[in-house]
Amino acid sequence: MSSSDIFIGETIGTAVLILLGGGVCAAVTLKRSKAKDAGWLAITFGWGFAVLTGAYLAGGVSGAHLNPAVTIGLAIEGGTKWSDVPLYLASQLLGAMIGAVLVWAVYYGQFHAHLTDPEIAKTKDDSPAGPVLGVFSTGPEIRNVVQNLVTEIIATVVLVLAILTQGLNDGGHGLGTLGALITALVVVSIGLSLGGPTGYAINPVRDLGPRIVHALLPLPNKGGSDWSYAWIPIAGPLIGGAIAGGLYNVAFA
Amino acid sequence: MSSSDIFIGETIGTAVLILLGGGVCAAVTLKRSKAKDAGWLAITFGWGFAVLTGAYLAGGVSGAHLNPAVTIGLAIEGGTKWSDVPLYLASQLLGAMIGAVLVWAVYYGQFHAHLTDPEIAKTKDDSPAGPVLGVFSTGPEIRNVVQNLVTEIIATVVLVLAILTQGLNDGGHGLGTLGALITALVVVSIGLSLGGPTGYAINPVRDLGPRIVHALLPLPNKGGSDWSYAWIPIAGPLIGGAIAGGLYNVAFA
Amino acid sequence: MSSSDIFIGETIGTAVLILLGGGVCAAVTLKRSKAKDAGWLAITFGWGFAVLTGAYLAGGVSGAHLNPAVTIGLAIEGGTKWSDVPLYLASQLLGAMIGAVLVWAVYYGQFHAHLTDPEIAKTKDDSPAGPVLGVFSTGPEIRNVVQNLVTEIIATVVLVLAILTQGLNDGGHGLGTLGALITALVVVSIGLSLGGPTGYAINPVRDLGPRIVHALLPLPNKGGSDWSYAWIPIAGPLIGGAIAGGLYNVAFA
Amino acid sequence: MSSSDIFIGETIGTAVLILLGGGVCAAVTLKRSKAKDAGWLAITFGWGFAVLTGAYLAGGVSGAHLNPAVTIGLAIEGGTKWSDVPLYLASQLLGAMIGAVLVWAVYYGQFHAHLTDPEIAKTKDDSPAGPVLGVFSTGPEIRNVVQNLVTEIIATVVLVLAILTQGLNDGGHGLGTLGALITALVVVSIGLSLGGPTGYAINPVRDLGPRIVHALLPLPNKGGSDWSYAWIPIAGPLIGGAIAGGLYNVAFA
Repeated sequence: MSSSDIFIGETIGTAVLILLGGGVCAAVTLKRSKAKDAGWLAITFGWGFAVLTGAYLAGGVSGAHLNPAVTIGLAIEGGTKWSDVPLYLASQLLGAMIGAVLVWAVYYGQFHAHLTDPEIAKTKDDSPAGPVLGVFSTGPEIRNVVQNLVTEIIATVVLVLAILTQGLNDGGHGLGTLGALITALVVVSIGLSLGGPTGYAINPVRDLGPRIVHALLPLPNKGGSDWSYAWIPIAGPLIGGAIAGGLYNVAFA
Repeated sequence: MSSSDIFIGETIGTAVLILLGGGVCAAVTLKRSKAKDAGWLAITFGWGFAVLTGAYLAGGVSGAHLNPAVTIGLAIEGGTKWSDVPLYLASQLLGAMIGAVLVWAVYYGQFHAHLTDPEIAKTKDDSPAGPVLGVFSTGPEIRNVVQNLVTEIIATVVLVLAILTQGLNDGGHGLGTLGALITALVVVSIGLSLGGPTGYAINPVRDLGPRIVHALLPLPNKGGSDWSYAWIPIAGPLIGGAIAGGLYNVAFA
Repeated sequence: MSSSDIFIGETIGTAVLILLGGGVCAAVTLKRSKAKDAGWLAITFGWGFAVLTGAYLAGGVSGAHLNPAVTIGLAIEGGTKWSDVPLYLASQLLGAMIGAVLVWAVYYGQFHAHLTDPEIAKTKDDSPAGPVLGVFSTGPEIRNVVQNLVTEIIATVVLVLAILTQGLNDGGHGLGTLGALITALVVVSIGLSLGGPTGYAINPVRDLGPRIVHALLPLPNKGGSDWSYAWIPIAGPLIGGAIAGGLYNVAFA
Repeated sequence: MSSSDIFIGETIGTAVLILLGGGVCAAVTLKRSKAKDAGWLAITFGWGFAVLTGAYLAGGVSGAHLNPAVTIGLAIEGGTKWSDVPLYLASQLLGAMIGAVLVWAVYYGQFHAHLTDPEIAKTKDDSPAGPVLGVFSTGPEIRNVVQNLVTEIIATVVLVLAILTQGLNDGGHGLGTLGALITALVVVSIGLSLGGPTGYAINPVRDLGPRIVHALLPLPNKGGSDWSYAWIPIAGPLIGGAIAGGLYNVAFA
């Protein structure tokens, strides 16, 4: 796989992933959206099909990792060269930031209507996270460093183990069409089952990229970007990806 | 592909697409429907599986574009001859109009019950769109030409890029069975994630065909057809399809 | 295909179809069910996956018609011998009746709790249909012979056309695994989009078999079986299946 | 298949099944979960995709039974050696207990918040089942030994028959990728359609393993583990699996 394939596939694929994933959070959260209050099923299927779309687009180009935890897991397992890892990670972070900016463009008027609502503006200081940070990044329902880390680690182990298993089932590491569909449904599953406590980042750049964009965008009354929590959705998924890579080599290979 | 294949496939396929897509809007909107208020998930899955059914029926006949934005994207990419484009577009518009008439036939009594309800009749002049126009065509929650165009363009780029990628993944431009399924789920994804601001036309004839039928049908108290907005769901998807075709040639081919 | 294959496949397959399809209606309707009021999406996915399960079980045995409208459509198209049609239809009707009895066994206590509720018992005479007939058979929201027939015809044309197209796409009339999945999702689509007016029988035995069982079962306060409506979900789907068979031969073959 | 493959595949696969399946019950039940009250569709899709993920992970290793009823059905049908059955069952029970402990780890804070809520603590003695037992094990809405057994038997026959049919359709007993998807959707179907009365254990270890863990975990105010009901979700699925194995040999093989 050439460097330009990795760069193009991971940047475009991750941008689409975050455009659609952040998009569903905007759709169900913001005032004046037709999907307002569409519920948890909408969010979990929305993120799952965001993975499907991003993985389908990038699968034939870069292998569609779209997630540093997947890249680390594949590097440990042996399917990705360590020397390619930095380019994967940088492209993923760039793509995630582009995706978050695109969410803002698509929901421009809705962001403004939401953040200038007097009721919402009044409550923005009740938490380290501003009223629309949830459209960009994850946050815990109960702040408990150990539990939050454990939740992200376990959820990411499930994700990365499923992706590594595709090598076993389909004889290759590039995502095939059916592999992209299964991965998407595994992400729906993780969202439905393990997303309750922390909102399931399970991907460092899915959280960090949009959080940076939240900090930079000129949104009125946007409140804080909750940087004190930001390390958990980075560390948890990276640890989970590494555990999955090792577990796969010991138990499945 | 012969002209008669294009005509038959695109007309029947687009008619089924709009019958099922418009149908789910009727189902959740109109009084005396068993699906009334079934919610945004029902609408987005309904449209996605409408695409599945239409694409599955027409895939082996005409390639199942069912959408001028797809036809334009494929023409730019090289998978469709420019000389076939006018027939594709005309067949799609005809099919969309047939589909909208079929929705009216299926929900005949429900349309009447809805539009003769005194509460609903009373409110019909509050907007440029009549009380059942949403069963036929799209409309924005917030009227902002730039944002509405940008939303339709971005959403259509995602759709057409995914369809073009099938050439890459599956080695051909005719939709296979699995390709039709993936496209359907991408449409669910776009609906869940990018449908909040404008109702995601992402297809010029999906909006224009039913809007013409709305203007022609003898519905009581039907109100306006909101023609001032009608150019956006035509221009946005066409621009998006063209961008996707170009982007595909530069980045993926 | 031998007579015993047809008999076994169609009887078991249709029994499973109605067990699961009637089951989801019981699940969301009856008191003391964990799924009470789970909504229209649950019903439409429940029926779709009922088709998936029945078709998957019977696909390799009898070709999994499970529906006289499909059998008629295939006979007209040429994929099924006319001499096999009576056995297909008789097996389907038998299977549908067995399935309806199994729903009663699974929800035995729930039926009793529901029908002996004083509120529900009090209202049982307001309609030609008793309070749990909807668990067994379909009924219209608005009684209009022409519209109800048209709705059932159009919905069945879509279903049977999609099933006939599998011969085109996959080179055979026995349902493959992927074909069963697509058919299931087409049924979800029809439910979401065209089910609002009549509850989408789209299958004569799906309606008649359980209606006979409703008339025979010793349910307390069960009310009428609405026989005056019973011919529409028989005639409509048969007409629709025949139209689809003819349309397929003219336009697709 | 070697003993270590069976042990590793069944233990890890069943652990993931119960982690995700129990997880969705925790997600929709417990206070301070983002998915609280997400509804019956979330539960049924959550369990279905839990089966998908577990079966996908273990399919290439141990054949992914993950359920003693499946193992018994396959042993009767002939696809699994009787001498391997004890190891399958022991690994499945161990995996189910590990999965239940992982649910507790993921939702640690939510369990505590829920069980120390004064309202919930006050009501804990109203039933033989404590307030969070539903996160671990199943229980009937109406306690009726015959109906509850019959419901579990019928639901399990459908499940195991579908799994045995894969041997017919796909020419082998190891779950392929598409087979795992179909099985998952059959489980969604069983949940939607037959889950109303008892909560569809359809798997002895899915109920027993987490029930043991519920009895052992140091949860405050956890109430009883409802051991008087515990034999039904063991006996029913085992009987159902045996019936399915026999029925398959008589009718399908």
